[in-house]
Amino acid sequence: MSTPSSSRNSWKVSASIVSKRTSNPIRAIVDHIKVKPNVNKSMISLALGDPTLFGNFKIHQTCTDAVAKQLHSYKSNGYPPSTGYLSARKAVADKFTLPEAPLTAQDVIITSGCSGALDMCIGVLCNEGDNILLPRPGFSLYQTLADSKGVEVRYYDLLPENNWEMDLKQLETLIDERTATVVMNNPSNPCGSVFRKQHLLDFLEVCDRHHLPVIADEIYCDLVFSGNEFFPLASLTKTVPVLSVGGLAKKYLVPGWRVGWIFIHDRQDIFAKEVREGLNSLSQLILGSNSLVQSSLEDILHNTDSSFYDDTRVQLEANAKLSTEILSKVPGLKVIVPQGAMYVMISINIAEFKDIDNDIIFTEKLLGEESVMCLPGSVFQCPNFIRIVFTSPPEVLKEAYERMAEFCARHHK
Amino acid sequence: MSTPSSSRNSWKVSASIVSKRTSNPIRAIVDHIKVKPNVNKSMISLALGDPTLFGNFKIHQTCTDAVAKQLHSYKSNGYPPSTGYLSARKAVADKFTLPEAPLTAQDVIITSGCSGALDMCIGVLCNEGDNILLPRPGFSLYQTLADSKGVEVRYYDLLPENNWEMDLKQLETLIDERTATVVMNNPSNPCGSVFRKQHLLDFLEVCDRHHLPVIADEIYCDLVFSGNEFFPLASLTKTVPVLSVGGLAKKYLVPGWRVGWIFIHDRQDIFAKEVREGLNSLSQLILGSNSLVQSSLEDILHNTDSSFYDDTRVQLEANAKLSTEILSKVPGLKVIVPQGAMYVMISINIAEFKDIDNDIIFTEKLLGEESVMCLPGSVFQCPNFIRIVFTSPPEVLKEAYERMAEFCARHHK
Ligand SMILES: Cc1ncc(COP(=O)(O)O)c(C=O)c1O
Ligand SMILES: Cc1ncc(COP(=O)(O)O)c(C=O)c1O
Repeated sequence: MSTPSSSRNSWKVSASIVSKRTSNPIRAIVDHIKVKPNVNKSMISLALGDPTLFGNFKIHQTCTDAVAKQLHSYKSNGYPPSTGYLSARKAVADKFTLPEAPLTAQDVIITSGCSGALDMCIGVLCNEGDNILLPRPGFSLYQTLADSKGVEVRYYDLLPENNWEMDLKQLETLIDERTATVVMNNPSNPCGSVFRKQHLLDFLEVCDRHHLPVIADEIYCDLVFSGNEFFPLASLTKTVPVLSVGGLAKKYLVPGWRVGWIFIHDRQDIFAKEVREGLNSLSQLILGSNSLVQSSLEDILHNTDSSFYDDTRVQLEANAKLSTEILSKVPGLKVIVPQGAMYVMISINIAEFKDIDNDIIFTEKLLGEESVMCLPGSVFQCPNFIRIVFTSPPEVLKEAYERMAEFCARHHK
Repeated sequence: MSTPSSSRNSWKVSASIVSKRTSNPIRAIVDHIKVKPNVNKSMISLALGDPTLFGNFKIHQTCTDAVAKQLHSYKSNGYPPSTGYLSARKAVADKFTLPEAPLTAQDVIITSGCSGALDMCIGVLCNEGDNILLPRPGFSLYQTLADSKGVEVRYYDLLPENNWEMDLKQLETLIDERTATVVMNNPSNPCGSVFRKQHLLDFLEVCDRHHLPVIADEIYCDLVFSGNEFFPLASLTKTVPVLSVGGLAKKYLVPGWRVGWIFIHDRQDIFAKEVREGLNSLSQLILGSNSLVQSSLEDILHNTDSSFYDDTRVQLEANAKLSTEILSKVPGLKVIVPQGAMYVMISINIAEFKDIDNDIIFTEKLLGEESVMCLPGSVFQCPNFIRIVFTSPPEVLKEAYERMAEFCARHHK
């Protein structure tokens, strides 16, 4: 039994246990970095997964036109249903349906960003005291959500030497009777990896054998570089029930618009009895997603010129290549070549440095000396790596990487 | 210990306990109404608290212009901070600050609608196993949120014979050492009542004596009719800490835009230690509110012509008067005259009817015979009342009320 959060004989108001166990690992580490950037060098941040920051990745006019149209129609200002406008759900289903993984409007829930989708999926599948399998390294919100709900986190490893593929042997050892679900993320934040088809099939085989439903975070779907192919997880299984989540944020370069979705892939009707109803119930708590953007989904998803997607991918791929080329040559660093998304993880060979003990100190000193900010791998449960977001313009990336090279040379043994 | 939500030897996936205890009382009752509207009469719904449905309440051009401006600036598509843009928080603080209840940007959190604000406020103040005091009749989301979090609901009564003032004597008997907070709602949904200053002072005296922090739902602030005045609760106390919630939905006629806020009123620094930090933590779970609307708040709040507010109020007041005038003359009904918001509660004198046993049957038969839909008081924990939303155009209201009068005459003893 917990203690009362308020006491009757004085003004002492505590915050709830839930709020206390809700924390963002990024903030927990980054807020402790007390080092100030070098005032003699311009600040370059490679830390935030927000492609809109620099103006080089441009939203497509279809998106702005679509929202402007809704705005001026005066027809989309009222309350949408809690699971989203039917027309929006249909537009999303039509865009993402596949012969092997068919979707109708009934299988789609519109959410407050992909974050809202993850919140609902973890919320509907996990009880307090259950455990959940999360990727390490992985997007930190998974842990924040699990902790908040009192769900025990068990990390399965992604192996840098295998293009960050999942260590399925180790994953399997984590499963017990209280394992409620496994989150997989493809393409990956922070790894920039894209899973091979056979690897996904092997993963599904494990899930199938243990009757483990999957939450597939596919928000970076299609953001893959040449030579790689993205396979929606649900398209590869007839048996494993999958809640797949995504949203507008990354592909359409509008993270602030806060529109995401859940796809209920459930070819055996395993979710039909309870999970669909549970998602419906959870959708009523805050009625999440903006009506103007929801009603624009049909235009955005179906009328955006295909060249827009190509342009984004080409730019990202060029930046990925540039990052790999320059940073691979820096002694002490090892680049795990990215295959998609907008991230690259770089391994720091600590033993080669004379006065850098770990990734957090690396990050702090780099900031203090070179005014270059990236995230230490520790915020993704992956020490002695750093994550770089390569959405800045090429000339900015080059400048940052030159400074990093000088920095590494200076601290090298 | 709860049972696992997934079983390892077969595909049996349960929904979580949290999702199962999350339910909307409106849906629970309304979904059971199996009666179909009378096909010979046009459908008139007086059930939904959405003023945008009929086109008579028009959004002000400042709002559309403001969003269009942000849209075309291409500067407001990225991630806002989890508590909202600083400029948005400042715009809200500047609009709502008062000498007796000062607000700065630091005291404002931008949320996903007022619903999101309520979710966070209840979430930060209440632990599972605590109890919360809620108004009866009251907005059903309060209970949905409390149930979802495993917080015990205790209802305090609003007294129809006293303009729906709180029964403070009864309220006081409900407080014990596990009472985490009390929700008060002024002006009220579903009552359309507006509390007198002295009543608010009496309420605060009780809270003060028991050291009970308050969540004040003031989303209908300023929507009050002549002869009444709205007093923000926080402006009347120097001691009781108040989380006040509101949003754009009602006053600006844009419920679908999903922007709300929390004001932290805390003149004794009681929330300073834990509750502010807790709200910050909870804000990180879904990063709720749309960036375009957030960045439009300054224009919306500060540049909307004052005539807009007057027009809305005048229209609402005229509709309130019309509703009162017509329905007061209907034998079997008693109107509790509304003082604000967009609702009126009508008492049904069941004893006067020959074949109507309660408010749910009244609602069903009215729908089946007259194609007029309103909500039974039971969805607000207030049997033998019905709630009418009077935002339809006057001619529609008149038609609906005439049908109701005929209906009541037909079923009268
Ligand atoms: C893997 C992954 N999933 C989900 C999200 C959250 O997406 P949204 O902004 O739509 O909430 C992010 C954002 O960075 C992400 O990297
Ligand atoms: C009293 C009250 N509080 C809060 C809300 C929710 O407001 P929002 O639409 O901003 O979530 C409503 C909506 O009807 C309401 O009546």
